[in-house]
Amino acid sequence: MNNFVWDKDRKSRTGVAEAVFCSHKSHADLQDIIRFNLTSESPVLFTRLSVEQWLALPSELQTQMDYDQCSATALLNFSCELSSKKQVCIVTAGTSDLAIAAEAQRTLAFNGYQAPIFSDLGVAGLWRIMEKIDEIREYKIIIALAGMEGALFSVLAGLVRAPIIAVPTSVGYGVSSEGKLALDSALGSCSPGILTVNIDNGFGAANAAIKIINQFSVD
Amino acid sequence: MNNFVWDKDRKSRTGVAEAVFCSHKSHADLQDIIRFNLTSESPVLFTRLSVEQWLALPSELQTQMDYDQCSATALLNFSCELSSKKQVCIVTAGTSDLAIAAEAQRTLAFNGYQAPIFSDLGVAGLWRIMEKIDEIREYKIIIALAGMEGALFSVLAGLVRAPIIAVPTSVGYGVSSEGKLALDSALGSCSPGILTVNIDNGFGAANAAIKIINQFSVD
Amino acid sequence: MNNFVWDKDRKSRTGVAEAVFCSHKSHADLQDIIRFNLTSESPVLFTRLSVEQWLALPSELQTQMDYDQCSATALLNFSCELSSKKQVCIVTAGTSDLAIAAEAQRTLAFNGYQAPIFSDLGVAGLWRIMEKIDEIREYKIIIALAGMEGALFSVLAGLVRAPIIAVPTSVGYGVSSEGKLALDSALGSCSPGILTVNIDNGFGAANAAIKIINQFSVD
Amino acid sequence: MNNFVWDKDRKSRTGVAEAVFCSHKSHADLQDIIRFNLTSESPVLFTRLSVEQWLALPSELQTQMDYDQCSATALLNFSCELSSKKQVCIVTAGTSDLAIAAEAQRTLAFNGYQAPIFSDLGVAGLWRIMEKIDEIREYKIIIALAGMEGALFSVLAGLVRAPIIAVPTSVGYGVSSEGKLALDSALGSCSPGILTVNIDNGFGAANAAIKIINQFSVD
Amino acid sequence: MNNFVWDKDRKSRTGVAEAVFCSHKSHADLQDIIRFNLTSESPVLFTRLSVEQWLALPSELQTQMDYDQCSATALLNFSCELSSKKQVCIVTAGTSDLAIAAEAQRTLAFNGYQAPIFSDLGVAGLWRIMEKIDEIREYKIIIALAGMEGALFSVLAGLVRAPIIAVPTSVGYGVSSEGKLALDSALGSCSPGILTVNIDNGFGAANAAIKIINQFSVD
Amino acid sequence: MNNFVWDKDRKSRTGVAEAVFCSHKSHADLQDIIRFNLTSESPVLFTRLSVEQWLALPSELQTQMDYDQCSATALLNFSCELSSKKQVCIVTAGTSDLAIAAEAQRTLAFNGYQAPIFSDLGVAGLWRIMEKIDEIREYKIIIALAGMEGALFSVLAGLVRAPIIAVPTSVGYGVSSEGKLALDSALGSCSPGILTVNIDNGFGAANAAIKIINQFSVD
Amino acid sequence: MNNFVWDKDRKSRTGVAEAVFCSHKSHADLQDIIRFNLTSESPVLFTRLSVEQWLALPSELQTQMDYDQCSATALLNFSCELSSKKQVCIVTAGTSDLAIAAEAQRTLAFNGYQAPIFSDLGVAGLWRIMEKIDEIREYKIIIALAGMEGALFSVLAGLVRAPIIAVPTSVGYGVSSEGKLALDSALGSCSPGILTVNIDNGFGAANAAIKIINQFSVD
Amino acid sequence: MNNFVWDKDRKSRTGVAEAVFCSHKSHADLQDIIRFNLTSESPVLFTRLSVEQWLALPSELQTQMDYDQCSATALLNFSCELSSKKQVCIVTAGTSDLAIAAEAQRTLAFNGYQAPIFSDLGVAGLWRIMEKIDEIREYKIIIALAGMEGALFSVLAGLVRAPIIAVPTSVGYGVSSEGKLALDSALGSCSPGILTVNIDNGFGAANAAIKIINQFSVD
Repeated sequence: MNNFVWDKDRKSRTGVAEAVFCSHKSHADLQDIIRFNLTSESPVLFTRLSVEQWLALPSELQTQMDYDQCSATALLNFSCELSSKKQVCIVTAGTSDLAIAAEAQRTLAFNGYQAPIFSDLGVAGLWRIMEKIDEIREYKIIIALAGMEGALFSVLAGLVRAPIIAVPTSVGYGVSSEGKLALDSALGSCSPGILTVNIDNGFGAANAAIKIINQFSVD
Repeated sequence: MNNFVWDKDRKSRTGVAEAVFCSHKSHADLQDIIRFNLTSESPVLFTRLSVEQWLALPSELQTQMDYDQCSATALLNFSCELSSKKQVCIVTAGTSDLAIAAEAQRTLAFNGYQAPIFSDLGVAGLWRIMEKIDEIREYKIIIALAGMEGALFSVLAGLVRAPIIAVPTSVGYGVSSEGKLALDSALGSCSPGILTVNIDNGFGAANAAIKIINQFSVD
Repeated sequence: MNNFVWDKDRKSRTGVAEAVFCSHKSHADLQDIIRFNLTSESPVLFTRLSVEQWLALPSELQTQMDYDQCSATALLNFSCELSSKKQVCIVTAGTSDLAIAAEAQRTLAFNGYQAPIFSDLGVAGLWRIMEKIDEIREYKIIIALAGMEGALFSVLAGLVRAPIIAVPTSVGYGVSSEGKLALDSALGSCSPGILTVNIDNGFGAANAAIKIINQFSVD
Repeated sequence: MNNFVWDKDRKSRTGVAEAVFCSHKSHADLQDIIRFNLTSESPVLFTRLSVEQWLALPSELQTQMDYDQCSATALLNFSCELSSKKQVCIVTAGTSDLAIAAEAQRTLAFNGYQAPIFSDLGVAGLWRIMEKIDEIREYKIIIALAGMEGALFSVLAGLVRAPIIAVPTSVGYGVSSEGKLALDSALGSCSPGILTVNIDNGFGAANAAIKIINQFSVD
Repeated sequence: MNNFVWDKDRKSRTGVAEAVFCSHKSHADLQDIIRFNLTSESPVLFTRLSVEQWLALPSELQTQMDYDQCSATALLNFSCELSSKKQVCIVTAGTSDLAIAAEAQRTLAFNGYQAPIFSDLGVAGLWRIMEKIDEIREYKIIIALAGMEGALFSVLAGLVRAPIIAVPTSVGYGVSSEGKLALDSALGSCSPGILTVNIDNGFGAANAAIKIINQFSVD
Repeated sequence: MNNFVWDKDRKSRTGVAEAVFCSHKSHADLQDIIRFNLTSESPVLFTRLSVEQWLALPSELQTQMDYDQCSATALLNFSCELSSKKQVCIVTAGTSDLAIAAEAQRTLAFNGYQAPIFSDLGVAGLWRIMEKIDEIREYKIIIALAGMEGALFSVLAGLVRAPIIAVPTSVGYGVSSEGKLALDSALGSCSPGILTVNIDNGFGAANAAIKIINQFSVD
Repeated sequence: MNNFVWDKDRKSRTGVAEAVFCSHKSHADLQDIIRFNLTSESPVLFTRLSVEQWLALPSELQTQMDYDQCSATALLNFSCELSSKKQVCIVTAGTSDLAIAAEAQRTLAFNGYQAPIFSDLGVAGLWRIMEKIDEIREYKIIIALAGMEGALFSVLAGLVRAPIIAVPTSVGYGVSSEGKLALDSALGSCSPGILTVNIDNGFGAANAAIKIINQFSVD
Repeated sequence: MNNFVWDKDRKSRTGVAEAVFCSHKSHADLQDIIRFNLTSESPVLFTRLSVEQWLALPSELQTQMDYDQCSATALLNFSCELSSKKQVCIVTAGTSDLAIAAEAQRTLAFNGYQAPIFSDLGVAGLWRIMEKIDEIREYKIIIALAGMEGALFSVLAGLVRAPIIAVPTSVGYGVSSEGKLALDSALGSCSPGILTVNIDNGFGAANAAIKIINQFSVD
C-alpha cells in the first residue's frame, strides 16, 4: 500500500496540477511516486528535489526526467509548448535570488508560460530599474524577488500598473533573519497592491500567476 | 506650506488612485488634505478614519463626504457606477471579520466594482462552505478573510480555480497573536496559489484585485 | 554510581511506564541504562534513539532490542499482545509526517494498542479526508499530525465526535518555523476540543491517549 | 439577511453544541444571534460576554439569560440536570486563575457535568497539592490551570493516572508574556501525557473533556 | 537629597549637553530637575515631555520654558543663534512621521543648527524624491524618517553622497510591529552606509549629527 | 603585539580570577594566551574548550594542562586544596544536564570548593527529590540545572531555605527553544528567591556562588 | 470556603514569609486575605497593590495597614526593628527605576534589613559610579536596577567583589521591549557573577538577598 | 548574457565604490564578476569571500587578487596609498571580535584610510578602556565592536566626543541570540549619539565612516 494519495483531479478542480514537494520525503517514497506517475503518464513537476535526492534515484528513473540543479526541479512526462504572449515576467533584486527565480520560471514553463528574468535590479542603484522599466511594463503580472530588506517590492509597485507577486528570499544575514525581513517588507509596504507568498516560494508565486491567467483567459 | 505631497498621477501610473490612510494623522493635516481635494474635485478614498477623527471634522467638510463607521472609510467626490460583472467576491470565516470585509468592499465600490460578502463560512462546519461553493466559484477572484488559525484559506484554495487573496484578521486571542497566526497560515499553506496581504489590510486586498482586473480587462 | 535514578513505580503511579528519551544522552549513560533494565527484565521503550547511537551500542545489547529506524525507537523486554479494539487511529496530512506517526504507533504498540495510520489526507484535496472519514469515525480517539499551516486539525475536529490529539510536525519552511505555525494553528483553532502536544511529540500524544483509555477502561 | 450561519447540527456531528464566542461581535450581531436562538429554543452558551456587552442588551433579552460575570458566560434555554459522577475536576495554581476556571466549570455544567474546583495549589508550597491529591485522584480527567511559569502541570502529571488538560492562564508579568510561558511549559513538560489548549481557553478544555467522556460513555 | 545626579560636564566631555528624558519621571522629580537648572542657568532640553506632564507643572515654571507640543520638547535657559550653514536636513516618508521629525529638528536647533524638513517623500511615488533630490544633496548629513516597511532608507542611500542617519518610526500596523520592521529595513539595507538609531529616536539622531559636525568643524 | 589584554588584578578586584572563554577564539590566539600564563605561573581556567581546540594544541602545552572533555574545561597552574565544608551542591533534573553541571563543578573546584552533584531529580517523579531533600538542605547554596520546562526550579525553591542559582540548559526540543523555556521558567517562577544565569552557563553560576561565599566568609 | 490556601509555615520552610501578590486579585479575595491575616496576627507583605485596589478597601482595613504608593506595597501586623549592619544596598541607573527600587527596599525592611538606595548612576557618565564606588563596596550584596540597555550591570560587576542581583526594569522604548533588553543584558553579560530576576521584580531580588543573608548568618 | 548589472558610477554618485558581497553567489557568477572587473581595471572589494569560494577560483584569477582569510575579503586592481591622518579607529570588546574588525579595517584601507585596532577593551575590566582612552580620543570617528551584551557601546559613548559607529557581533551564546542582544544594546543605549549597523557588518560601518569623512573633507 502506498503512503501517498494522488490528487489526480486537482488540475480540473483548481486549475493547477499537483506537484511533488520533495523536502522531507524518503528515497523510497519518492521512487514510489515517480513510478506511479510514469505508469499514469500524466505530467508531474518535482520541486525542492536536492542533488542528493536526485543522485539517489536509479538511473532508469533519472533518464525519464528533466532535472535542473539550479532550481532543484524535475519534470516528468512533460511535453508542453510555451506561449509567446507577454503574460508574466520575473524581476530579481540581486544575483543571489536566481535559484528561486528559476524555480518560478520552471513552474511557469511546466504550465506553458514563458517568463523572462530581469536580474540584479536592486534599489541601491535606481537607474538599473529605470533602464528596464518600460520593458517590464509590457507584462501583465510581475513576480518580484528580493532578500535583505526587500525595498524592491515597494519601489516597483509604485512604478507599474501590474500586480506584484512578491517572493521574499532568504538572502542576507543578521536582521534579515532568513527572509523574514523581506517578507514583512512586502506585507507592510507603503505601496498598495503587493501580494505575497512564503519565503523562497517561487513555486507558489508561479502557481498564483497561472491561476490568475487561467481565470481571465477563459473570458 | 503643506506637510503633504499629492501623488496626483498615481492612478495613471499604477492603476489605482491615491487613498489617504488616516491613522496617525493630526486633525490639522487631515483637514488640509480634504480641502485640497475638495478644490481639485478628484475622487478620494479615506481609510482607517476613526469615529473620533470623523467627529472632529467641521460639519462643512462632513457634509461633503460619505462616511461609513463599520468600515471606517469615507468617500469624497465619488460618483462611480458599479459594474454588474461577477469579478470579485469576499468570503469571511466569521462575523467578527466583517469590519475588514467592509473595508475591502468599499474600496472595490470606490473603483467601480460590486463585490458580495459571503460571511461566517468557517471550517469548523465544512457544510457551510460546501453549501455556497458553487456560488463562490462564479467569481474570478476571491478575497478571503479569517482570523484565529486561518484554516479557511487552505480549504478554499483546494476547492476553487480562482486565485485567493488572503486577508488575515486580528480576531482571536492567545496564540492568534493579533492576526500573526492567520497571516502565517496563509503564507505557509499546503494549498498552492494563495496570495497574502498585511493583517487587517482589506484595502490592500481590494487594490490588488483591482490591479489584476485592470490588467486583464484591457486585453 | 549511576547518573540516573530509575522511576520504577511510574507505571503504577501514572499509568505509563518510564521511557528513555535518548537525545543528548552520552553512549556511556545509554549503555548503563540498557544494562540496568536487562537485569531488571522490565519492558522499556527508547525514543529518539538515533542511528548513530544505535550503531554505537555493543552488538550483545543490540541483539536484545527491537530497533526501528523510521520511528527512531527501540523496545527492550517487550512481549505484549495487541488489543484488536478500535481505540485510537493516527491521521497524517502528508507523507512527510510519517516518522513522527510511527513514533506514536510504536509507543501505542508498546502499551498494547494497535493503531492504524491514515496518511496523506491534507486539506488541499478535501475529498481525501471525506473518502476516509467514516472509517476514521470508528475510533474513540484520533491522533492527528500536520506540519506547514496545520489546517487539518481544524477541519478534522469539525467532522468527528472523537477528541483530537494534535501533533504539530516540523515539516515546512519559511513561516512554518520548524513546526511553530502548525502548533499555534492547533492551539488557536476555531474548532473546539482540540488538544495539543509539543512539536514532533508523537510519544507524548500516544501517552495521553493511553492515559485516557486506561482511565475509562477501568470503569 | 443575517451575518451569521447557525451550525445547528454541530452537536450531533461533533458531540458539543455550538457556543457563541462574543469577543469582537457587535451589539447588533449579538442581539440577532440571541433572538434567533430564543425562537429556536435550543440551548446556547455565550462565552467572553463582557459586562459592557451584557449591559448593552435590552432587558427583555437579559431576563431570558443566566449571566455570570466572573466567568463572563451566559446560558440561554438551559435546563440540564448535572450528573453526580466524578468525571472531571478543576485544579488551579492560584486564586488569580479563578475566572478562567469558572469558564471551564460553566461550560461543563451547560453540558451536564458537575466539576469541583480545587484552588490555590501552586507548587511553591507542595504540601498544598499533597493534601488534596487523594481527592483529586478520584476524577477521571483533570483540567489544570496555571499562569506564571506553569510548573503545576508537570508536578501534577507525575502524581496522577488521569490525563491532564492544561489551561495556561495570562497571569504573571515580564517573562510570563501574557500566558506564553505557562503555555510552553505545558507543551515542553518532562512529564508525559499532558494535553494543552490555548491561553485562557477554559471553554476549549471543557469541550475536550466532554468529547472524551462522550466517546467512552457510549461504550 | 535629590534622586538625580546632574552630569554637568557632559557637554565638555562628549560634545552634547545632558538632556532630560521625561518619560517615566514623576511630577516631583521633574520639578526638582527644572528648579535645579533654573538656578544653575545652564541651557537644558526636555524630551518626551507629555502634555499631561507639562500641564502639571506650576505656572511659574511653565513661563520659564519654551514648550512645543508636536515634538513634546521644552527648552530652558535657551538663547542660541542658529547657524545658516547647510549641514543637516531631515527627510520623512510620510506626514505621520512629523512629530519625530520635529523632535530631531528641535534638538538640532537647541544646539545651534537649523535643519529643514522635506516631508512626505515616500517611495510609492518615486518622483517626489526625485523632485527634491538636488536640494537634499546640498546637505552634508541626512536624517531620514520612515515607518511601515522603511524602503525610503535604501532608496535615498543609493542617491546621495551624504551619510544617512535612519530613524525608524512606529507608524504602520500588523507586520510593521510598532517600528520594528522599519528598523530592521534600515539595518539590513542593500545600500551601504546607512546608520541607525532606536525607533522614534529623533533626539538620538540629532545628537549623532551634532557629534559628527562638532568633530569635523574643529578641523 | 598580543590581541588580548590580561586582566591580572581581576581576582583582587572582583574576587574571581579571569577565566578564558574559548569559543570563537582562533588557535593562534589560544596558544598566545596559554604561553603568556605559563610564564606568569598564575592559575587559569579555560572554559568551552572544545575537543577540536584541545587536539589542535601542541603537545608541550597539553602536558601542562588538566583537560576534562565532559565539561570542556582545562586547568593551568592549578594546585588548590578543596574545602570540605558543605557550601554548595549541584542538582540536575536529568542526566542530559550533566555536562553543564560538570562545568560548574570544575569552576568551583578551581576556586577551592568541593560540590557534589545530585543528578536526575526531575519533577515527573517527585519522590526522587523528596528522597534527597534532607541531604540537599545541608548546603548553603544550591546550583540547580534543568532544561525542557524547568519546573525543578520552582519545586526546589519551595522546599529549601538556601538561595537557588538556576542554570537553564539547552536540553529539549520544539517549544523548549534551546533553553529559552527553562530560562523563562526560572525567571517567572511562582517561588520567590530564585536567581538566574544565562542558558548553559555553569561557569557563571559557580562564579556567583563563589562571590557569595567570599563575601560572607570574611565576616 | 476561601479561594486561597495560606502557606503558614513558608517562613520556617524557606526562610521568607508568604507575601501576597495583588495583581489580578479581585477586591473580594483581597479582603478575605486581609481579614484572615488580621485574625492570625502574623505579619504580611502585600506587593503590586495598586492605588485603585487600595482605595477600594474599607477604611477599617486601611487603618490597619501601612501603604506606600510609590512602591505599591502595604504592610500588615508589622513591627520589626531594622538591623544597622551594612548587608545590602540598592543601586539604580536612573530616577525612573525608583519605584521598583522602593519595592525591593520595603521588602527588605519588612524582613528587618535596612538598605540605602544609590540612585541615578547610569554608565553614560561613569564618574557618577566612580564617585560612589567605595561606599557601595562596603555592602555584601548589591541589588542593581537598570532599564534601557542595562549596561550598568556589567560595569558594576567588574568593579566590586559583591554578587550583583540584577533587576531589569521596564524603562525605555522601542528595542528596550518593556525590559526584555535589560534582562538579556544582565543574563548575557561579559562580567561573571551576575544573578538575575524577572523584569521589575524588586520583591524577588530582595527575597533572594534575604535568603543569602539568612543562610550565612546562622553560621 | 551576465546575471549581474554593474553599478559603475556608484562611486561618483554615493562616494563609495560598489563592492561584491560574495555570500550566496555561485562559483560561476563570482568568476564572471572577477573577469568583468579585470578587464575594466577598476578597483573592487570582495567581502564575505569564504575560503571555499577562494579555493574554487582558478589560479590565474587568484594571482590577481589580494585575499585575507581572517577578514574574508579580497582586493582586485587595488593600488591606494593610505592617509596618515587620524580619522578613524576601531575598538573591540574582545579578541573574538577581530574577524569583523578586520573586515572594517580592510574596507577602510581599500578606500585609502588607515585605521588602528584597539582590541580586548571589554567593560568587565574598565581600566583597560581607561588606559587607552586618551589615545582613542585622538580619532574623529570610532568604530566599536562588541558581542554578548554590548555594554562597551554605552560606556565608550559617555567618554568621548567622537560619534560611535556600533558594530554588534555574533559573539556569545544563549540570550546573546547571534548578535541580536548586542544590536539592541547599541540601539537602546542610555548614551546618546550611538549609530548602529547590522550584526557583523564591519563593511557597512567602514562605508558610513568613509561617507562622513568624504562629506566633510571637501569642505
